[in-house]
Amino acid sequence: MGPDTLSPSPAPAAPSVHAIVLAGGSGVRFWPLSRELSPKQFLSIFGGESLIAGAVARGRAVPGCVAVHLVTGERLLPEFRNHLSPRTDIGGDRVDYIVEPAARNTAAAVALAAAVVAAADPDALLVVLPADHLLGAGPEWDRALTAALGAAAAGRLVTIGLEPTRPDTGYGYIKAGDAVYPEVREVEHFVEKPDAATAARFLTEGGYLWNSGMVVAPASLVLSELDAAGERASTPDSAGGRTIADAARAVAALAPDGRASDAGRALFAAVPSVPFDKAVLEVSERVVVVPTTTEWSDVGSLLAIADLAEPDERGNVLVGRVTDVDSSGVIAYSADRLLATLGLRDVIVVDTPDATLVAAKDRTQDVRLVVEALRLTGARELIEPRTSLRPWGSWTLLLKSGAFQVKTIRVEPWKRLSLQRHAHRSEHWIVVTGCAEVEVDGVTLSIAAGRSAYVPVGALHRLANAGEEPLEIVEVAVGDYLGEDDIERLEDDWAR
Amino acid sequence: MGPDTLSPSPAPAAPSVHAIVLAGGSGVRFWPLSRELSPKQFLSIFGGESLIAGAVARGRAVPGCVAVHLVTGERLLPEFRNHLSPRTDIGGDRVDYIVEPAARNTAAAVALAAAVVAAADPDALLVVLPADHLLGAGPEWDRALTAALGAAAAGRLVTIGLEPTRPDTGYGYIKAGDAVYPEVREVEHFVEKPDAATAARFLTEGGYLWNSGMVVAPASLVLSELDAAGERASTPDSAGGRTIADAARAVAALAPDGRASDAGRALFAAVPSVPFDKAVLEVSERVVVVPTTTEWSDVGSLLAIADLAEPDERGNVLVGRVTDVDSSGVIAYSADRLLATLGLRDVIVVDTPDATLVAAKDRTQDVRLVVEALRLTGARELIEPRTSLRPWGSWTLLLKSGAFQVKTIRVEPWKRLSLQRHAHRSEHWIVVTGCAEVEVDGVTLSIAAGRSAYVPVGALHRLANAGEEPLEIVEVAVGDYLGEDDIERLEDDWAR
Repeated sequence: MGPDTLSPSPAPAAPSVHAIVLAGGSGVRFWPLSRELSPKQFLSIFGGESLIAGAVARGRAVPGCVAVHLVTGERLLPEFRNHLSPRTDIGGDRVDYIVEPAARNTAAAVALAAAVVAAADPDALLVVLPADHLLGAGPEWDRALTAALGAAAAGRLVTIGLEPTRPDTGYGYIKAGDAVYPEVREVEHFVEKPDAATAARFLTEGGYLWNSGMVVAPASLVLSELDAAGERASTPDSAGGRTIADAARAVAALAPDGRASDAGRALFAAVPSVPFDKAVLEVSERVVVVPTTTEWSDVGSLLAIADLAEPDERGNVLVGRVTDVDSSGVIAYSADRLLATLGLRDVIVVDTPDATLVAAKDRTQDVRLVVEALRLTGARELIEPRTSLRPWGSWTLLLKSGAFQVKTIRVEPWKRLSLQRHAHRSEHWIVVTGCAEVEVDGVTLSIAAGRSAYVPVGALHRLANAGEEPLEIVEVAVGDYLGEDDIERLEDDWAR
Repeated sequence: MGPDTLSPSPAPAAPSVHAIVLAGGSGVRFWPLSRELSPKQFLSIFGGESLIAGAVARGRAVPGCVAVHLVTGERLLPEFRNHLSPRTDIGGDRVDYIVEPAARNTAAAVALAAAVVAAADPDALLVVLPADHLLGAGPEWDRALTAALGAAAAGRLVTIGLEPTRPDTGYGYIKAGDAVYPEVREVEHFVEKPDAATAARFLTEGGYLWNSGMVVAPASLVLSELDAAGERASTPDSAGGRTIADAARAVAALAPDGRASDAGRALFAAVPSVPFDKAVLEVSERVVVVPTTTEWSDVGSLLAIADLAEPDERGNVLVGRVTDVDSSGVIAYSADRLLATLGLRDVIVVDTPDATLVAAKDRTQDVRLVVEALRLTGARELIEPRTSLRPWGSWTLLLKSGAFQVKTIRVEPWKRLSLQRHAHRSEHWIVVTGCAEVEVDGVTLSIAAGRSAYVPVGALHRLANAGEEPLEIVEVAVGDYLGEDDIERLEDDWAR
């Protein structure tokens, strides 16, 4: 936050821009809508597309963007591939994945992305975008982004600050200082989530902006500021005093394609787990802020459901198949099942096909406590979603018992599953919509709606939709072991 | 309630005893546990057997009982047959059904049963038992019943009064008077559900008994007292002044097997809808009461769930797959799905596989309002249960869509479904447990677990379990119409 004033000096060649989507979050605050293998980023109830698809599209649209990198952990990597690969509208198949060897908060995630990008392109600019926010695209956003890229090209760490529209106590704030140049201001200081009175004062006084977590900066500057950040961004001296940036450079050198390795895991596991804000932004002399009135939300808790519908005259927001009698201040959501509420006050009910949460509305921030309690019970519903997206479509689990399971499987037009076999289960496929092309041990048949195919244990098989219409089948698997890992893939259109 | 004192005079031959199970109630207060086609009587969560099976067993065990008659409406008749027929332990296949031509409250239901019984056996005694109560069998109950039968044989209308164990405001009370003879007392008066202070006074004063709704009386006396009850139990003079007993005798004469007819419907629809208590017991001079300390509950509302488990230290009763954090005074029930509660106070959550109710605990009596609201939405979950009992086993609906539906079907050992065909759907049966005997258009095959059978549209087919182990199959039906009424039965072990 230096006092010097910048004048933009045109670079000899415009630096290339890399969008970095930070997608490591587990979203435990959104259970049961989110699950460990289907985190908040995958939610699509807050718009026509999922939050992560929105973030990738936002990255893709950044002027000069040459690549979109998604930073996540090993466990979620296949889920992101399944989720994004089929989305040709956002170039989901052209997302570069950067795998965090260990989850160590945003300083380490940003550092790793910066190291991977800088190794190939030392002059690159990064546009760091959280994966799970909502943002209204438009001229206002374009203007902010252009200003931020300009300041970043001039050697600044640029934060994006949203003009507050209400005294929100759920966000951190940035106090903007003097203009550095048009649209860009110094940062006086950062403020943690304030209490209600302070938030109200911020709104009245002006000059306070919501801290969006979005950052635009040269990759090299991110690393050098991390190097300079001292103990906040280093292991203790007694443990070698290695900085987060050192570790990130080492991991990037080990695996330039962003794959995790045992050595990388060891390096990363040791670095401090610290937010990028704390490690760099709050101490760097080069931080500025671009204020914008762009519409934005961090979709911070299940209370965000209240934005999905207009409240009724008693202040209830009912979304989906919900019938209420005499409640007030209730938020109730059910996409599929029937939900009824009676005489409740200030309660939130979130109903999904396999799990329901009922909470006091003022306890929504404590959903993580429920998640911790459920973890002790080993509940499957904490980990797996009932519907799982795949590059070729999706499946939905209807019933899982000891000896069999029933799924519906949807295959998009012209898509096919991998050529595979199972060691422990036979499968019955009943076509209910469309027409299936079924290959079993080298024989391919067309199966119309109302007819079925049988895949014995050990048979090499493949299911395809060779038509224009979506294909839907019911799969009944029978066997002594039904885990998703009993699958040997011999050929796959998505190289899984 | 005459002042005369009876001395028991042995009859020349002991009269025969008929148990009358009143099973007309819809149990709307138990939604979503109960449904229109699976009323409260079918609930088995309050004991090892369903409430109705308990009531039939209770009737069967009455000393001298020659028949158990179940009084219900036309709509629920097949459901009762499905539910009770397989229960050989209680002689469920030997239940006589008496069909109310119209639902006109308990005076009409008791009158119809009395008329049907008296037409064949003028000296018979009736033991009238509500179908949806819990009652602890044992010597105390036997003694009460014996005393009641003695008084009934001596020409009395005998009510059973339970010694109260708490100041309950949910029951009506009977004030007992002088002893008529051992175990039998005069009735001073009946009291409607009292307020809390009055209920507490009743408990302190003593002599007040819970009115159980159980009645023991000669069939002929029931009819003659109804005849004598005057306008309470008659159509207005302007409409012919026909008594409920007249209508019941006419319906019984029209259809001695208790079947409904158009003429019966017309007769019954006209009679006043009045409880037996109001029509007869509160005015008859011949009413007495047998007090008993038998354990009893009318399972009056969803709050009865609180009796299913011990409360935790914060007063929460959690039954089934429920995880709670920081709630107090909560009742939460989920048999199958995962339910989590957080920071709630005095809320009841009742979760079923296809519908969930969340209500303020003090509004449990108003569940009928929810049912009325749901009726306007046409919700299937108000009418149909997800699992439906059948004489041969049960089925559970997993998914119903426009073009197909998926069920699991369980067939008990040595049982078989009807020989049937469908005009609009083909069926795929995948055997997942046990071994099926499948007949399709005259060809019978044994299908082992892991294999399947196909039933084309229009094919004559039958599913049987020809083994000792339960048979479980997954049925996928595909077709343009999937209603339960697209079934043509050509042969049925249960004559449906």
